[in-house]
Amino acid sequence: MNPIKIGVAGLGRLGLIHADNIYHTKHVELTAVSNLDKQVNKEVQEKYSIPYSYTSYEAMIENDELDAVCIVTPSGFHTDHIQKALDRGLHVFCEKPIGLNTEDIKKVIQTIEESDLVFHLGFMRRYDEDYVFAKQMIDRGEIGDISIIRSYGIDPIAGLDSFVEFAKQSPSGGIYLDMSVHDIDVIRWFTEAEVKKVWATGNNKAAPELNALNEVEIGTATLQLDNDVTAFLVAGRTASHGYHVETEVIGTKGMIRIAATPDKNKVTVFNEHGTVRPTSQNFPERFKEAYINEIKEFIDCIRDERQPSVTALDGLRGTEVAAACQHSFEKDELVEITY
Amino acid sequence: MNPIKIGVAGLGRLGLIHADNIYHTKHVELTAVSNLDKQVNKEVQEKYSIPYSYTSYEAMIENDELDAVCIVTPSGFHTDHIQKALDRGLHVFCEKPIGLNTEDIKKVIQTIEESDLVFHLGFMRRYDEDYVFAKQMIDRGEIGDISIIRSYGIDPIAGLDSFVEFAKQSPSGGIYLDMSVHDIDVIRWFTEAEVKKVWATGNNKAAPELNALNEVEIGTATLQLDNDVTAFLVAGRTASHGYHVETEVIGTKGMIRIAATPDKNKVTVFNEHGTVRPTSQNFPERFKEAYINEIKEFIDCIRDERQPSVTALDGLRGTEVAAACQHSFEKDELVEITY
Amino acid sequence: MNPIKIGVAGLGRLGLIHADNIYHTKHVELTAVSNLDKQVNKEVQEKYSIPYSYTSYEAMIENDELDAVCIVTPSGFHTDHIQKALDRGLHVFCEKPIGLNTEDIKKVIQTIEESDLVFHLGFMRRYDEDYVFAKQMIDRGEIGDISIIRSYGIDPIAGLDSFVEFAKQSPSGGIYLDMSVHDIDVIRWFTEAEVKKVWATGNNKAAPELNALNEVEIGTATLQLDNDVTAFLVAGRTASHGYHVETEVIGTKGMIRIAATPDKNKVTVFNEHGTVRPTSQNFPERFKEAYINEIKEFIDCIRDERQPSVTALDGLRGTEVAAACQHSFEKDELVEITY
Amino acid sequence: MNPIKIGVAGLGRLGLIHADNIYHTKHVELTAVSNLDKQVNKEVQEKYSIPYSYTSYEAMIENDELDAVCIVTPSGFHTDHIQKALDRGLHVFCEKPIGLNTEDIKKVIQTIEESDLVFHLGFMRRYDEDYVFAKQMIDRGEIGDISIIRSYGIDPIAGLDSFVEFAKQSPSGGIYLDMSVHDIDVIRWFTEAEVKKVWATGNNKAAPELNALNEVEIGTATLQLDNDVTAFLVAGRTASHGYHVETEVIGTKGMIRIAATPDKNKVTVFNEHGTVRPTSQNFPERFKEAYINEIKEFIDCIRDERQPSVTALDGLRGTEVAAACQHSFEKDELVEITY
Repeated sequence: MNPIKIGVAGLGRLGLIHADNIYHTKHVELTAVSNLDKQVNKEVQEKYSIPYSYTSYEAMIENDELDAVCIVTPSGFHTDHIQKALDRGLHVFCEKPIGLNTEDIKKVIQTIEESDLVFHLGFMRRYDEDYVFAKQMIDRGEIGDISIIRSYGIDPIAGLDSFVEFAKQSPSGGIYLDMSVHDIDVIRWFTEAEVKKVWATGNNKAAPELNALNEVEIGTATLQLDNDVTAFLVAGRTASHGYHVETEVIGTKGMIRIAATPDKNKVTVFNEHGTVRPTSQNFPERFKEAYINEIKEFIDCIRDERQPSVTALDGLRGTEVAAACQHSFEKDELVEITY
Repeated sequence: MNPIKIGVAGLGRLGLIHADNIYHTKHVELTAVSNLDKQVNKEVQEKYSIPYSYTSYEAMIENDELDAVCIVTPSGFHTDHIQKALDRGLHVFCEKPIGLNTEDIKKVIQTIEESDLVFHLGFMRRYDEDYVFAKQMIDRGEIGDISIIRSYGIDPIAGLDSFVEFAKQSPSGGIYLDMSVHDIDVIRWFTEAEVKKVWATGNNKAAPELNALNEVEIGTATLQLDNDVTAFLVAGRTASHGYHVETEVIGTKGMIRIAATPDKNKVTVFNEHGTVRPTSQNFPERFKEAYINEIKEFIDCIRDERQPSVTALDGLRGTEVAAACQHSFEKDELVEITY
Repeated sequence: MNPIKIGVAGLGRLGLIHADNIYHTKHVELTAVSNLDKQVNKEVQEKYSIPYSYTSYEAMIENDELDAVCIVTPSGFHTDHIQKALDRGLHVFCEKPIGLNTEDIKKVIQTIEESDLVFHLGFMRRYDEDYVFAKQMIDRGEIGDISIIRSYGIDPIAGLDSFVEFAKQSPSGGIYLDMSVHDIDVIRWFTEAEVKKVWATGNNKAAPELNALNEVEIGTATLQLDNDVTAFLVAGRTASHGYHVETEVIGTKGMIRIAATPDKNKVTVFNEHGTVRPTSQNFPERFKEAYINEIKEFIDCIRDERQPSVTALDGLRGTEVAAACQHSFEKDELVEITY
Repeated sequence: MNPIKIGVAGLGRLGLIHADNIYHTKHVELTAVSNLDKQVNKEVQEKYSIPYSYTSYEAMIENDELDAVCIVTPSGFHTDHIQKALDRGLHVFCEKPIGLNTEDIKKVIQTIEESDLVFHLGFMRRYDEDYVFAKQMIDRGEIGDISIIRSYGIDPIAGLDSFVEFAKQSPSGGIYLDMSVHDIDVIRWFTEAEVKKVWATGNNKAAPELNALNEVEIGTATLQLDNDVTAFLVAGRTASHGYHVETEVIGTKGMIRIAATPDKNKVTVFNEHGTVRPTSQNFPERFKEAYINEIKEFIDCIRDERQPSVTALDGLRGTEVAAACQHSFEKDELVEITY
């Protein structure tokens, strides 16, 4: 079996994870990386014996050996980088969000639809075994019709400083686009319905330094869907206990909670603090397997000449809903979404 | 010590609980009951050796032996019954809600303020040891400033039929007045702030028969408070697993969950269903101690000639916010509250 | 209804709890206390408006007004105090253990059997709702036949100093008689079988100061019952997390755990330590309701002229098994028990 | 990097897992399999494109291309197969137990010590992240000195029929050698001490059909270690709720529980049974990652020319202690172990 040759664009925290996962996948070759920082490139290239490295994305995709790219560049570049890769005939794996601007995303979707190339969007929760287990229970009707979904994504306070540094350099797009797109995608995936109205609130009590950056530390959004489901989201950046990603689904016949407490592992400690469960501290730890699974699925899609179940349209919808949340928060009013 | 003599008005489910708790309290006498159903009166009178029973509230409060009344009549009668008891010089314990109509409640409040009588409103969660523990943590600053509160009150589906029968006979006032007032009170108690905006949604997927009664089976409300706290409520009538009352508080330094899972007791069962925690099935079971505690506090207030910390104004605010939720749900729009 | 008049003998920690519970029970009068310390007597007498107080047990039981006594004196006095109360025609509630010496216990049992007086032994776990729930599951056959029981009773390290002081003054009888009798009773109650062989081990790693007192800090015992059940006990004095009382029953069709984690209440805290459940810190807190329930049952037995289900023979068996454990630990060998 | 070429001996349930893990490991080639059943061999060979397959272990190890073998044959063959592989200059990964007969094991250990070949014994719990987390806590002194260890390994009843079939064909060596060796190894690993005395009990209440096979359905063993630690083991074959592997460590400063409840994933379900956590159903599910990790460590040891931390001596000690447990159970007496 000829290995599929992949180039990774962007070697930030998540780019390094994707590179590592691609490297360890059998019958796949981590053929190239592109990244602005030459020193990082050198280290990564040596660590994984990577044939090529570039400081420009455009240069990397000129490499004729490549079969596919994995785009982990800043969100603002996504649609441009996807478009260019598709134009070069490369299969594309792209981190969320698919883009910040709906018009650009729609153009990308058109290109994808006209090609035979695989496009895979990095909504990794769809490849997390806990989320998959819940989705299967829902689809088997075990909790009846869904009435309410609640979904939290709260980063640990340990990461606040690095976020502040990051946000100073390039806008995150706001907490809903930056974080809640995952929750929005889960809601759409679980309900197979679209959001029609949102109301969002937020504050900076725990991190007043974010006011100057026009960012919020903790945000909520209440979403009404077209099938009469109500969803409630929380996105935050200052959890003292770790990385809290939790989703609850209330159905007419039962309820499910996914990761109600963000346990790090199966260990319980009894000490002077009481009965203690250590918690996950960050997304690479919590979604380690999901990141591996999604890359495997991307590879399988290329080999089997099929598309993954998560689509570019899912990416577009996520961006649209997140943008409506941001708009609602800024205006402090109920916002209706038209697609 | 002369016993305090109490009459209980209304011998429905909760009235019977209060009667039993009053009977078992030392230095207190359960002196009278009033209730429409003579047969129930007779049984209760015999069970507890009660001196007097009446089929009319007004007749009962004419009894000069009484020191106090415990009002557990239908919500629509509350303000009238409170007013009459105060006029007769009786201390009053009244079940929630204090009333359905804000003008009537305001008059009652004026009477209370002008008298030296004890008025105690039955927001029993304030006397539940778990809620008190959480309140103390909050007040000590252990979770910092509050950003978000989430509070659920979901009745078990086992009680749906009896609710339908009940709702056919007299309007519940809607799910927010009937159920969420407890959550609203907890939010006000924990935050010491007032609600300024609400958005409420709901549906009848699990109990379409409620459509004809103008009731909802499950409702949500998102509340914005004047100190920039956002609260999210769920009230429901069809939990398959039991009586789910849960409250979460997200602060800038930590989170608390009260009864995240509605465990019946400390027993864990390992059987063919997995690892199973049996759950509470109804409010008398869940709040057994809280109902006893609040009666004890009522008695202590009478003896010590002081007022309980929960006030008639708390009752008014609860009704106002619940009414705003109901209004928002009916109009499907964001509602601002002015006090 | 004439009140039942009770005298409480011994006003140590647990004696004060019983006094308080008796005081708050309706139709019961806390008529007398006996205790060596006059100052304590005076305070308690005033607090509860108790008619009589004595510095001698023998003087108290001469009081003709008394109907019953509650014996909470040091273990070494139990059989003598029981015998004297029965001889005076008094109903007896006695704290565990029934006695330290089997011959004395057997004489007491004979006296009890020959009288019509109520004798109630304070194995309060039999009146704890969690243990009762488990017992009922077992009796309904929900976990099949029992194969294994595991039962822990571990005191918090916070109480170690006071235990050391106590042990310096009077021997505890060893950790098995002092603590494990509760676990032994639960095992006999759940299985309805008798222990035939034991092997006990222990050490003082956490509290070497106990070596000089001939006490152990943590002990285990493996028990073989005559119906082929194996039981494993742990008794300890140095839990860092609180008061850990836990019982597990492994049956052929399922398992049960009672208080697998010694949660203080229903509150979960998420803070820098992880997901934390605060824990119970002592027996008055953990078994608050059970202590009330057993006194109520004692009163009901007197009124209804019947005996409680827990018997003096249960007390004898508990002492015999505990003594065999102590013997096994001291000799470091397997010990067979003959009754 | 030249791939390391491995042959897998034995394609039973666990052999197939090892084959799959080896196949998916990068820079490793699954070069050969040996197994009695030609049909299975054919299917596996095709699935993974394996160059060679054999119906005889001895034939497979003649293949000069091989660098290493993974022995997953019946326990009774282990020492012979290890010896032959070492004689052929092959690195060896061998499933537990290392052997059933201590003399044979000692000979194997001598051969290992005299060679430069890697020998890796499949005590996979040492490569499970939960057990590693606990071990690290212990080694950092976070729970002080160990006083007690409790360790359960209970198979689900779903596997009972296949065990009965298996036991009819070849003796399992008894439940302690077949199952408890994992727990024994964990105890030795955590305490760094040796077992000196054991007392074992057991019964067949849930599976009387095992009497005829001289097997027990559920067994316990109490172990005394040379550093005054007491350990309590349970091994069983009939858990109704799944695959229950749990280990508890009680130290002088705290307690740890690993997998106190055998949760399948992070999902909690609220349904008519209560609050339910689905459970792991078998060892491939529970220890999926650990099986992968141990193979990776085996490969790394070969590449780095070092030995894994788990040794053949650990295997010998496991077998010795398990044999003493079996002996104690059969004789119903306390057994001392001399090494």
